[in-house]
Amino acid sequence: MEKIPILRMGKFLLVTIQVDLYDRLAEALEADLVQMVKKTGAQGVLIDISAVSIIDSFMGRIIGNIATMSKILDAETVVVGMQPAVAITLVELGLPLKGVHSSLNVERGMELLRTKINLSEGQSDDDGYAE
Amino acid sequence: MEKIPILRMGKFLLVTIQVDLYDRLAEALEADLVQMVKKTGAQGVLIDISAVSIIDSFMGRIIGNIATMSKILDAETVVVGMQPAVAITLVELGLPLKGVHSSLNVERGMELLRTKINLSEGQSDDDGYAE
Repeated sequence: MEKIPILRMGKFLLVTIQVDLYDRLAEALEADLVQMVKKTGAQGVLIDISAVSIIDSFMGRIIGNIATMSKILDAETVVVGMQPAVAITLVELGLPLKGVHSSLNVERGMELLRTKINLSEGQSDDDGYAE
Repeated sequence: MEKIPILRMGKFLLVTIQVDLYDRLAEALEADLVQMVKKTGAQGVLIDISAVSIIDSFMGRIIGNIATMSKILDAETVVVGMQPAVAITLVELGLPLKGVHSSLNVERGMELLRTKINLSEGQSDDDGYAE
């Protein structure tokens, strides 16, 4: 099984990472994901890493790449379910995942995405919205 | 990463199978899942097997077990994203997954679960609902 499935949930895409990402698999995931964002017009990407207990700089970089690519395609990325040890490792590696939002679980991640999408829609409809 | 994550999405639980299930992993998944159904009061379980390209009788049996256990705990099981080749193999193996519902993708699976839950709630509220 050499493919990470990307599930469509309404306006969002959900990716669950359960296996170690090696070069080719990570590249395939990036390519599949940007294509899915384009095809489905998704406004948000949720990456569930609750099964990831060990993270390295490679995986941190892949998550950052996905977030940047999605952002360029106008979709926000939220990482959900991070284990405490993973957060510690990321900070110690000097990889604070800039530009990536985090949530405790998928439900909260979806709420966060909904808030962000509503906010940005509000701003584009009416520039004086925040005043 | 020796654990398959179970994601809570509102009233439903979502399990994405990406790795080969061996005995211990399958047992752990069954145990985790029934505990999650109990803890969250979930009314439906979605099993995404879109990444599964080869299925054997063991995995077929595990899916059947999960469905039966969930049913006893009052939750319906829907298998989503099955690849055509997997459907062929299941029939050829003589494992038509009785008691398990199927849907093309997660979104349709959720719709199916919602319909089923509404129907059963309707029936319990009012016995003459179907007439």
